[in-house]
Amino acid sequence: MKLHNYFRSSASFRVRIALALKGLDYEYVPVHLVKGEQLQAPFAQLSPERLVPVLQDGDQTLSQSLAIIEYLDETHPEPPLLPADPPGRARVRALALDIACEIHPLNNLRVLRYLVRQLGVSDEAKNGWYRHWVETGLEAVERQLAGHPATGRYCHGDTPTLADCVLVPQIFNAQRFDCRLDHVPTVMKVFEHCMQHPAFIAAQPSRCPDAEA
Amino acid sequence: MKLHNYFRSSASFRVRIALALKGLDYEYVPVHLVKGEQLQAPFAQLSPERLVPVLQDGDQTLSQSLAIIEYLDETHPEPPLLPADPPGRARVRALALDIACEIHPLNNLRVLRYLVRQLGVSDEAKNGWYRHWVETGLEAVERQLAGHPATGRYCHGDTPTLADCVLVPQIFNAQRFDCRLDHVPTVMKVFEHCMQHPAFIAAQPSRCPDAEA
Repeated sequence: MKLHNYFRSSASFRVRIALALKGLDYEYVPVHLVKGEQLQAPFAQLSPERLVPVLQDGDQTLSQSLAIIEYLDETHPEPPLLPADPPGRARVRALALDIACEIHPLNNLRVLRYLVRQLGVSDEAKNGWYRHWVETGLEAVERQLAGHPATGRYCHGDTPTLADCVLVPQIFNAQRFDCRLDHVPTVMKVFEHCMQHPAFIAAQPSRCPDAEA
Repeated sequence: MKLHNYFRSSASFRVRIALALKGLDYEYVPVHLVKGEQLQAPFAQLSPERLVPVLQDGDQTLSQSLAIIEYLDETHPEPPLLPADPPGRARVRALALDIACEIHPLNNLRVLRYLVRQLGVSDEAKNGWYRHWVETGLEAVERQLAGHPATGRYCHGDTPTLADCVLVPQIFNAQRFDCRLDHVPTVMKVFEHCMQHPAFIAAQPSRCPDAEA
């Protein structure tokens, strides 16, 4: 397998965690988003969306991090990244989507650039926008986790799932942009537990071949 | 089953289509987003995210439209809304996520309000923002669909899938905001085919009990 990704892309980070949890080896192909390599050949010919991550598995070319992780879970079922029961699967997917649809899309590079370049927003207002969506979005995740009987050491039970693969990169972003996190103690407890796990440690941006200071 | 939703919410519309495709009856519970009913009791007590749609099925309370549709597909397998093969499932999920993560989150009500109220963006610039993400996002979907051997009368083959449940509401939004659509002929061909299907027709906003002119 080949993973086309960028060390700082949180969608890429999600897939790196899943691959590490499953113990799957892959070739790391860096795509430098800040330099715009996702818009140029050869990557642009591979990716109709011009987005990382892209996973190549044999003759399959897969996109969208959540779809890639579900594919990995279907093709390499052990250890499972989704519970066996439909309500549990729905809870894990909803937690993942609470981040992947409600927080992350508002804060990716092309959106921040549009705010500054097209709308003339100041750096201060741009950073306020970033923090607003992270802080309110994680508050919703906190309400989902706190006190729910299915929440364990991880988001759902005591083994990592898709939800943790999505949560951890979002917390890395939140920390990088100095977001408030003291209002989401359950989220942070899960995050800290994840960061004890070798797969999460190995997948983090600073361990990537294309990492920058 | 009870579906808490809003006629104009495209995430709600996705679930209404899936329920109609599966022939499942449900009680329609309106939540008026423009009046802020999602932030007040009783709905706010039901939904940690304060977002529609929410599906109640027995003692389960489910959120996030894509997670709800996957749950419905697992608990009521016929007709299937995902293909049987992992690469096909990954393609359908990626198409759904290309809209649910890359287009829709940028254009929902609370984001448009933040642009106007917090960033002081003009109505014209706000509408430009809306159209930008719809038009560039649908262009990426067009590149996914056009010429791909798996594209049929629907996004994937000749029966409706999760991808169509997500595509159709996005096109309704695009039309309502006068977005350009002539650059996405394959997308529009699939959309028009969907809108011949009784389930898509029955689920559309104008047919909802809480529909407004």
